[in-house]
Amino acid sequence: MPAERTIEIIPVSGIGEVSRGDDLATLLVENAHLSELDVVVVTQKIVSKAEGRLVASNPLDPTARENLIQRESVRILRRRDELFVTETPHGFICANAGVDWSNVDDGWAAILPADPDRSARRIRDGIKAQTGHNVGVVISDTFGRPWRRGLTDVAIGCAGVAAIVDLRGTTDTKGRELFATEVCVADELAGAAELVMGKSRGVPAAIVRGADESWFRRSSVATEIVRPAGEDLFR
Amino acid sequence: MPAERTIEIIPVSGIGEVSRGDDLATLLVENAHLSELDVVVVTQKIVSKAEGRLVASNPLDPTARENLIQRESVRILRRRDELFVTETPHGFICANAGVDWSNVDDGWAAILPADPDRSARRIRDGIKAQTGHNVGVVISDTFGRPWRRGLTDVAIGCAGVAAIVDLRGTTDTKGRELFATEVCVADELAGAAELVMGKSRGVPAAIVRGADESWFRRSSVATEIVRPAGEDLFR
Repeated sequence: MPAERTIEIIPVSGIGEVSRGDDLATLLVENAHLSELDVVVVTQKIVSKAEGRLVASNPLDPTARENLIQRESVRILRRRDELFVTETPHGFICANAGVDWSNVDDGWAAILPADPDRSARRIRDGIKAQTGHNVGVVISDTFGRPWRRGLTDVAIGCAGVAAIVDLRGTTDTKGRELFATEVCVADELAGAAELVMGKSRGVPAAIVRGADESWFRRSSVATEIVRPAGEDLFR
Repeated sequence: MPAERTIEIIPVSGIGEVSRGDDLATLLVENAHLSELDVVVVTQKIVSKAEGRLVASNPLDPTARENLIQRESVRILRRRDELFVTETPHGFICANAGVDWSNVDDGWAAILPADPDRSARRIRDGIKAQTGHNVGVVISDTFGRPWRRGLTDVAIGCAGVAAIVDLRGTTDTKGRELFATEVCVADELAGAAELVMGKSRGVPAAIVRGADESWFRRSSVATEIVRPAGEDLFR
């Protein structure tokens, strides 16, 4: 059993405005003191900006707004007023297909990265190349959920760190085998990072330091977290 | 805007086995160095044990198991094999009404606290009385969710710290008003704490140090997080 460790969540400020073509690995290395086995949580917004995932869209034009949401969705699950609960091509169920008109230039919207796991791998590989450190990378976005009010940050992509840690087969403190304890650490890492980021403080990334060594492995949100419709009790 | 701060998540070990009547505030004060404006995250399991929320139940007897889950539910939303997705009297949608046969003595099951917000207030008040410190308390439990695999820890009760932080009316970095940014910090605090707790390490509580001062206020999960059925798009 690993020793119990304190985890630190360290905000990364100083990145400033991100534009198409910016190299996020370089920006992270320049603005954070990264160490071996850090987890770097990066918000979707700057990933989308760096990857040029911006489209001209006026949020005050309801038809244009709806057309863009439809374009970025494979299915609309629910609708109430301006809120569309959608399934994206990635398999994410989220509001408005993840399209976001905040923190972008007027008349533009940010759409989700095409492949957030690949985005995470690119950042991870860039940090490795520049520093020699093996880090985990989580791309986070802010999602709602049924049954509980409020939004939380979750992982939409990851690289180098487990999306899910499977505690099945380990034993509880009474020595019996536990079941149903596949913990989605990537979502917990994303939510933890949100606690230091906030929405308007110019902190688009955070370092989680002290994560369990056993969590660092090849992984992806698409293969581990996204639940196929056929195994979902609510689709 | 508050200065950007590092948050620490500190595991609390040494609490040992908890029995009916144990005072959790005392156990926490004895086993952690608590400071003003810490958030103490306590797992449901030791709250249930301290409050005597244990019932005789053999998990290997399917009828007895189902009867107990039914007794602790107001509604069954879905069923697949041994998994019941239930609504509890608190309004939580979770697996098996939160009944848990792990980490309890053989032949017994732990059921949820009757009023987890009250449990949190009792711990908060006890810590205040013993140390003079104002802390937030979150009672956490491990829930699944639709659409995404894996479990995460969420808040089932809280006291002294906001369940939801409403960023509506604050502005984004472009100076425009943000919408739809009610962040469920209580769930993010619970998930962050889980990162240092694990299931089998004897760490039933964690301290989150460095949370934003503005989050410390009177709050409850029941009034802020539990979404009434009428406003839920998936019930």
